[in-house]
Amino acid sequence: MTQQIVLKSRPVGIPTHGNFEIKAVDLPLLEEGQVKLKAHTFSVDPYMRGRMRDEKSYVAPYSVGEAIVGGVVAQVIESKSNTLNVGDFVLGMLPWQEAMVVPAAGLQVVDPNVAPLAYYLGILGMPGLTAYFGLLDIGKPKRGETVVVSGAAGAVGMVVGQIAKIQGCRVVGIAGDDAKASYLLNDLKFDAVINYKSSENLNAAIAAACPDGVDVYFDNVGGEISDAVMAQINKGARIIICGQISLYNETSVPMGPRIQSTLLKQSALMQGFIIGNYASRFTEGFSALAKWVATGELKYSNTTYRGFEKLPEAFIALFEGKNLGKLVVEV
Amino acid sequence: MTQQIVLKSRPVGIPTHGNFEIKAVDLPLLEEGQVKLKAHTFSVDPYMRGRMRDEKSYVAPYSVGEAIVGGVVAQVIESKSNTLNVGDFVLGMLPWQEAMVVPAAGLQVVDPNVAPLAYYLGILGMPGLTAYFGLLDIGKPKRGETVVVSGAAGAVGMVVGQIAKIQGCRVVGIAGDDAKASYLLNDLKFDAVINYKSSENLNAAIAAACPDGVDVYFDNVGGEISDAVMAQINKGARIIICGQISLYNETSVPMGPRIQSTLLKQSALMQGFIIGNYASRFTEGFSALAKWVATGELKYSNTTYRGFEKLPEAFIALFEGKNLGKLVVEV
Repeated sequence: MTQQIVLKSRPVGIPTHGNFEIKAVDLPLLEEGQVKLKAHTFSVDPYMRGRMRDEKSYVAPYSVGEAIVGGVVAQVIESKSNTLNVGDFVLGMLPWQEAMVVPAAGLQVVDPNVAPLAYYLGILGMPGLTAYFGLLDIGKPKRGETVVVSGAAGAVGMVVGQIAKIQGCRVVGIAGDDAKASYLLNDLKFDAVINYKSSENLNAAIAAACPDGVDVYFDNVGGEISDAVMAQINKGARIIICGQISLYNETSVPMGPRIQSTLLKQSALMQGFIIGNYASRFTEGFSALAKWVATGELKYSNTTYRGFEKLPEAFIALFEGKNLGKLVVEV
Repeated sequence: MTQQIVLKSRPVGIPTHGNFEIKAVDLPLLEEGQVKLKAHTFSVDPYMRGRMRDEKSYVAPYSVGEAIVGGVVAQVIESKSNTLNVGDFVLGMLPWQEAMVVPAAGLQVVDPNVAPLAYYLGILGMPGLTAYFGLLDIGKPKRGETVVVSGAAGAVGMVVGQIAKIQGCRVVGIAGDDAKASYLLNDLKFDAVINYKSSENLNAAIAAACPDGVDVYFDNVGGEISDAVMAQINKGARIIICGQISLYNETSVPMGPRIQSTLLKQSALMQGFIIGNYASRFTEGFSALAKWVATGELKYSNTTYRGFEKLPEAFIALFEGKNLGKLVVEV
């Protein structure tokens, strides 16, 4: 017997505890090629909100009554695989369960001596790779250009800003509270940070922080924050659409100013992407990120909840903007 | 003495005759390096509406009280230049005047024996080059893909569709009346044409015309037509923002569904551009277009108004969707 968390009902608007249910389930016997895992750290990510809708997107929706699935670091506690041994730590797309029996194929071994295990869900995992490829491959920042990143204190945003600094850019972050702003400015050496919640005039604040305009905008949040950034883009600007967290809980089609005329006037590019597009280049991205982490050029923060049963609470907190950096749940 | 047409006042909404004024002006004496020109054919283009606003864009606004400036083919009637002779036809960005004295530098000689003079304002001029570079350089259509073009019967749109056919694509045009649709289908061999004015459900009509979805969307019009196309884009789609004529006369910021989430879900690219970005490659584009015109692979239509004083009427007609192909005014 183990515990699992299932999607009890699809959220309408902001998710609530009532959308989740904790259940006891039996574990099957191990078959050849399978391992039994004990969960160590769960990833909680904004994109998972999209999978809770019953609509076509870049990943299939979750089924009501079935376990939520996401990024998990776990330890092998029983093995009928000839590639994984008891004690190994692995990373995979796995169910929200305290223990589970799964095929060894598809799991990636991770080394707790190279980096803390939570890093494999953050800076050395999907969020780090998302920042790396989105910024460098789509944004193509050049030395001296101005890079703006929204959701700057999130798991992706704080990596985007630091990589942009490594590229020699002026980096302006947009975040939602003063503690985050202070961390980004003082610890991560952003050039400027705007607290969009306390800013009286966001357009003016962005204009002031970007005296030479905006060359690259890495967008994690969408909505009115992005409208304000778009008003300052330069000719030839690149806008990377990575997330739209401000809109994920909308219950009708979000409306806003049409941006095509701005893209036209500024000969600007806007490109959406998901990290899966870059699967063939993950090794390149991982190596670069690991090197910068080792040299101390890339710093990182996690917000950690403790206890399996905290998973729904942690997920809901994503939309309250409470997390600094990657939000994880350790068992 | 000659006649000129000046911007009398900035239009609010759809331009009217009252925004223009015809005036008599003296011509200066020719100086060294100058030529006197007699206008032959004037270009009337949607982008000129943008220059009538008093706001920063990719070209400077027109000044109230001064002559409108646009693409003009004219004949040299007096010359103090050692590069241009009396009788030569030239193309330039010139004032709306029946006759004018201008520097020879900056004028491009055009040959009426290679193509009708109006072609240098259309298929072999700015609209043709716009279609060529926008479609091929940004859209990168591949054989078998579906290309949708809005404003399909306009000066740019009809070239886009035909170049896409040359590339082996399925081509779907969107236009505003049945005569245009019939011309695009029967004369230009588009695969399907949707009359957006008579279509009861534009989303359904586009879905039916694009059974494999939309890979490339060349957008000349914007607004609700584009909303309907965006609902059908495929993963990896490329959206070329060339014009937004449906919005040029709006008096407030046009609102619509936010498209960033669609770009994100489909890993799609949206790129605005102006033809000036490709100035260094005009010779390449002109050569390709001239070859296709010579072989008959590219066909073309003009809508011609006759008489200098018809310029305001012709310009206003652009926004009534009356023109098939390039709209020009012959003196």
